[in-house]
Amino acid sequence: MPQIAPLATTLPAFIDAQAPSALAVLVDNHTARHCYPLVKSLLPKHTLIKIPAGETNKNLGTCETIWGALTNANFDRHALVLNLGGGVIGDMGGFCAATYKRGIAFAQLPTTLLSQVDASVGGKLGIDFQGFKNHIGVFTQPNDVLIDTAFLGTLPPRELRSGFAEVIKHCLIADAAEWERLRRYDLEDLDWNTAVAHSVAIKQRVVEQDPTEKGLRKILNFGHTLGHAVETHFLERPKGRLLHGEAIAAGMIMEAFIAHQKGMIDAALLAEIEEYLFAVYGNVPLTEADLEPVLAHTLQDKKNRAGQVRMALIDGPGQCAYDVPVTKSEMRQALDYYRG
Amino acid sequence: MPQIAPLATTLPAFIDAQAPSALAVLVDNHTARHCYPLVKSLLPKHTLIKIPAGETNKNLGTCETIWGALTNANFDRHALVLNLGGGVIGDMGGFCAATYKRGIAFAQLPTTLLSQVDASVGGKLGIDFQGFKNHIGVFTQPNDVLIDTAFLGTLPPRELRSGFAEVIKHCLIADAAEWERLRRYDLEDLDWNTAVAHSVAIKQRVVEQDPTEKGLRKILNFGHTLGHAVETHFLERPKGRLLHGEAIAAGMIMEAFIAHQKGMIDAALLAEIEEYLFAVYGNVPLTEADLEPVLAHTLQDKKNRAGQVRMALIDGPGQCAYDVPVTKSEMRQALDYYRG
Repeated sequence: MPQIAPLATTLPAFIDAQAPSALAVLVDNHTARHCYPLVKSLLPKHTLIKIPAGETNKNLGTCETIWGALTNANFDRHALVLNLGGGVIGDMGGFCAATYKRGIAFAQLPTTLLSQVDASVGGKLGIDFQGFKNHIGVFTQPNDVLIDTAFLGTLPPRELRSGFAEVIKHCLIADAAEWERLRRYDLEDLDWNTAVAHSVAIKQRVVEQDPTEKGLRKILNFGHTLGHAVETHFLERPKGRLLHGEAIAAGMIMEAFIAHQKGMIDAALLAEIEEYLFAVYGNVPLTEADLEPVLAHTLQDKKNRAGQVRMALIDGPGQCAYDVPVTKSEMRQALDYYRG
Repeated sequence: MPQIAPLATTLPAFIDAQAPSALAVLVDNHTARHCYPLVKSLLPKHTLIKIPAGETNKNLGTCETIWGALTNANFDRHALVLNLGGGVIGDMGGFCAATYKRGIAFAQLPTTLLSQVDASVGGKLGIDFQGFKNHIGVFTQPNDVLIDTAFLGTLPPRELRSGFAEVIKHCLIADAAEWERLRRYDLEDLDWNTAVAHSVAIKQRVVEQDPTEKGLRKILNFGHTLGHAVETHFLERPKGRLLHGEAIAAGMIMEAFIAHQKGMIDAALLAEIEEYLFAVYGNVPLTEADLEPVLAHTLQDKKNRAGQVRMALIDGPGQCAYDVPVTKSEMRQALDYYRG
């Protein structure tokens, strides 16, 4: 179970218990500057591995840098890697640790809201490949997840808002009462320790029941089929940076529309979701020319079966179904609805 | 449990039971010519992925080729990969399958003696990296291992002899009576169905007790610390090709010498091992200049802890200890003994 507390109280005890033969800390240029100084004094002798920030570096080339650094430092199987950063650092650093000498220990020290409530929990690791998100990876649980919400103070507001999309998602798929409460709040008024703990608890509960996503875990993908497709499309053709949560917010509107079309949620809930998400995130600019590429990306979604897109769709407030077949025409209508 | 029987009786039933959404067969240029024709008629519609043969291609670049082929064919999570070939195909194809979309189904169809008695069993997957063997990889059990000894007839005698080293190793570490029997046989007189079944049973028994090599499984590494180091050294500085089993045979002589020096085996057993292995494999030519590079490679052995080499060493006939600390000086003496 992830620990939500200041690192000063959790990290030294964790390292003592692991008693690693060697220690590495993986950072990017942002977390090297903003987060590593807050952690450094808590650590014994370690190797610092620094990589460039950003999703575009979440690739095999950067893995080679990380594996190379572990190799050059003669790290053995009893070494420990601490991934200090957002989702890219956690997913890629975890993947590198889980595959170095067929797997060494690692812990996630998530520094963004997105990674605290989502990426760091559940053992999904991986990198992008040929433009597809998380296309190469493994399921491996970290040895621990140490969450310190003090890092959220170092984030730009837009990053914080992006991570908030997963908080909203967890309420929509699993906690109707919390959704009712949340949608009356402004982002600025939230208590992060409470909100993060609530979100992590939902995710952890789902993941424990289905660690390798054979069934139930798929509900965590609500908003993510079309959301990932939009995100991938923007990654390929940069026209202004689009953050993960911004893409997922758009995806949740589109997929809530599909759920409504299929009679799974009523018009009132669709309106609530739409209103709240547009108010927080605004509108992702999608032109007619963007539609086919976005639809094409959905064909690579990992939840598909035999070329057919299968979605997680909310099925009433605080509930979610999965493996729901969705046609290209239904997705196109959803994209049109979002744009209109 | 691996199935040892003609593929005509095992493969169609396995594929029916899996009911994959798509099927790929991974081959190299050798197995494309010698093995694929024997299998093709047993298969439904499939994608053939062909890579160049040889350990030097067991790298990330070839993985990109394989992942790219799966991606281009729009393979989803319910697809199945059949790895038709020796250890390189099985280790690398298994690694690619186990990491594609965080893991799809795969089966090992080993075509060499080495892969039938060793690589295909036990779920060790991976590739070489920066000259280190199997440096990047995972532990993932294949969905099945289908062993057809008819393929052994397609092998050059030297390949067969190489694989035989693991048969010898299994006897030395786990079956004293079989070692007594085996060492009186010529390679040519063996019944392969019996020998393969015996070897696979030993390996399977060990692996089931310790799938991720926390303890007991390490005994399978007898001969492999110095053997791998010699093999890696030859891989870097090609001066005549050295096969895996040839390197392991040399490693077993060196490590048997160390076991004897430590009082773990008597002089008679050392003499038996040495006599038999030199008779079957001859002598790997090692010069004075080779010694330091070989010793340096042992520092990257995955069984080490905190920079100290730990070996699996036979501890009497048919028995083996593991995690035995060995110094550089002891290894150097063993190399000198082997050369003398």
